[in-house]
Amino acid sequence: MATVKTYRRKLDLSGRVDLSHGAGGRAMAQLIAEIFHSALDNEWLRRGDDQSVFEIGAGRLAMTTDAFVVSPLFFPGGDIGSLAIHGTVNDLAMSGARPLYLTASFIIEEGFPLADLARIAQSMGAAARDAGVFVIAGDTKVVERGKADGVFITTAGVGRLPHGLELSGDKARPGDAVLISGSIGDHGVAVMSKRENLEFDCEILSDSAALHGLVEGMTAAAGASLRLMRDPTRGGLAATLNEIAQQSGVGFRLEEEAIPVKPEVAAACELLGLDPLNVANEGKLVAVVAPEAAKALLDAMRAHPLGRDAAIIGAVVANERRFVQLKSSFGGSRIVDWLAGEQLPRIC
Amino acid sequence: MATVKTYRRKLDLSGRVDLSHGAGGRAMAQLIAEIFHSALDNEWLRRGDDQSVFEIGAGRLAMTTDAFVVSPLFFPGGDIGSLAIHGTVNDLAMSGARPLYLTASFIIEEGFPLADLARIAQSMGAAARDAGVFVIAGDTKVVERGKADGVFITTAGVGRLPHGLELSGDKARPGDAVLISGSIGDHGVAVMSKRENLEFDCEILSDSAALHGLVEGMTAAAGASLRLMRDPTRGGLAATLNEIAQQSGVGFRLEEEAIPVKPEVAAACELLGLDPLNVANEGKLVAVVAPEAAKALLDAMRAHPLGRDAAIIGAVVANERRFVQLKSSFGGSRIVDWLAGEQLPRIC
Repeated sequence: MATVKTYRRKLDLSGRVDLSHGAGGRAMAQLIAEIFHSALDNEWLRRGDDQSVFEIGAGRLAMTTDAFVVSPLFFPGGDIGSLAIHGTVNDLAMSGARPLYLTASFIIEEGFPLADLARIAQSMGAAARDAGVFVIAGDTKVVERGKADGVFITTAGVGRLPHGLELSGDKARPGDAVLISGSIGDHGVAVMSKRENLEFDCEILSDSAALHGLVEGMTAAAGASLRLMRDPTRGGLAATLNEIAQQSGVGFRLEEEAIPVKPEVAAACELLGLDPLNVANEGKLVAVVAPEAAKALLDAMRAHPLGRDAAIIGAVVANERRFVQLKSSFGGSRIVDWLAGEQLPRIC
Repeated sequence: MATVKTYRRKLDLSGRVDLSHGAGGRAMAQLIAEIFHSALDNEWLRRGDDQSVFEIGAGRLAMTTDAFVVSPLFFPGGDIGSLAIHGTVNDLAMSGARPLYLTASFIIEEGFPLADLARIAQSMGAAARDAGVFVIAGDTKVVERGKADGVFITTAGVGRLPHGLELSGDKARPGDAVLISGSIGDHGVAVMSKRENLEFDCEILSDSAALHGLVEGMTAAAGASLRLMRDPTRGGLAATLNEIAQQSGVGFRLEEEAIPVKPEVAAACELLGLDPLNVANEGKLVAVVAPEAAKALLDAMRAHPLGRDAAIIGAVVANERRFVQLKSSFGGSRIVDWLAGEQLPRIC
């Protein structure tokens, strides 16, 4: 992502991306300088090298990546740009790491409006500043019309782990408490309703948000009693708990009544034929914690704006078949499987 | 990229990717386990968390990312999988860093053959093992048929910088020597000839390769006399030198005769209407070095298999207009501009 300033006229934002913007020449340099670097500005991008260098003290780093192909690109409560920052920040935060440096790669379809690209870049810049992270390297590719769908973004990131924290999906033990940081299904329903042009009485917003601030309070409150955290994105809470059940060799027993779902999200899910348990979230986390620390953890979560509606939703149980069971409000019980098929394509 | 083993039958590799493989459920878990984790196997992926953690000593890290959209996916001398490893390894190596950990994100078009995906993953695994790097985190997204083109891969990576090395594109000074590690244009011509179904008397292979071994010998030989290195990928040698000219505020004077071009590549370029100076390379580097260290650097490059054909191709000159000039074999001189348009779409 080298920047060079040798273009004569400013980029006309009423124009569209063409193949020259991905060709490694002057047009690409201008696109990168005027759209990406101006939105994401920092000392690393300003150097204009093909890689960036940072100092780090000895210790442990977490590293992750996510590709974003959400459709539509702009949805109530966010867009692909902010989502691409939040998604990678959150994957880092779930290990307890403090997110530090990100990279961003763009695959753009020929003909994509430059104004939309600029809006996405600005949104990424704002999300990165809010989260206190820096996008220090990037790449731009352009493919022919009909060979992509608008823009795809892949972010990767590194973060620093505090000493002594060892969270992992294989650490859930029977008796542990299961907490969620707030209401489920908001993101998936916001994207679906925009995609399907549905209008509801009150607009449903994506919960897309950076969770590392919330996590900081949680690790301070629960310390070594915290077994693991995970953000229930694609596949929703159901997929996340089934994954953990497999990794830890345990089952889960959930209380349906305890799981927060906004009434408008529940109504939209019914209309769309979705189960909120399978719907993606982009600003929520699941935590598994030793039972004696559950209350302190809940209090710490509720003390943070992003955990105001946190709840204890169930417990880890011994179960050889690694089932996730849901006790319904009527007293019945059912197995919550992860879906075999594709319920919600391109939700993130 | 969590792995869970709850599927009953092995993936049928005669099948195709469908939307369920990107849905965050059981089908995705199986795809990841049987195609990606088996090919890229390492202790980090085996944990199955959404991020990976590594220990690092205090010091400086380089970080970079690249998206790969090459078409066709398989070409003489490589494929999108090996290319995605080499590209990020080389961007790290150009800073002098020793590449360590990579991430890989896949955006796959519905209907893509599973056997091709497996072949690409195997090729990535082999390239990573050869380069001594680990792919420690990943992500898989599937988009509807006609919304992508086969598969796009984005890699990101981190590497460790040795103490004292400070390479950057702004360090070229008049009088410095310019070296290239071998013949130019091989990658671009290999991809174009495959795309256009051209057959030549002798097959032209991509030069796609990991350059950090070559770089190690170079930094040992030239030390602080080495100003910068860069790999001339998209836009070729012409774009790379124009970038450096801008960053350093200098010009270049090149000797056409000194620039190695294989006769078959020169012939193919003539047929395709291309200038080798604009054609992408994926296993070559340009180095700028203080003049007194040029010979020692050249010897060190030639001592490595990937630098056998290395050559001193010109010098940095003072030039307010930052021109890259080429002295032709006939004694004439011309300006080598970077291309304004798109000469070779989807070459990497």
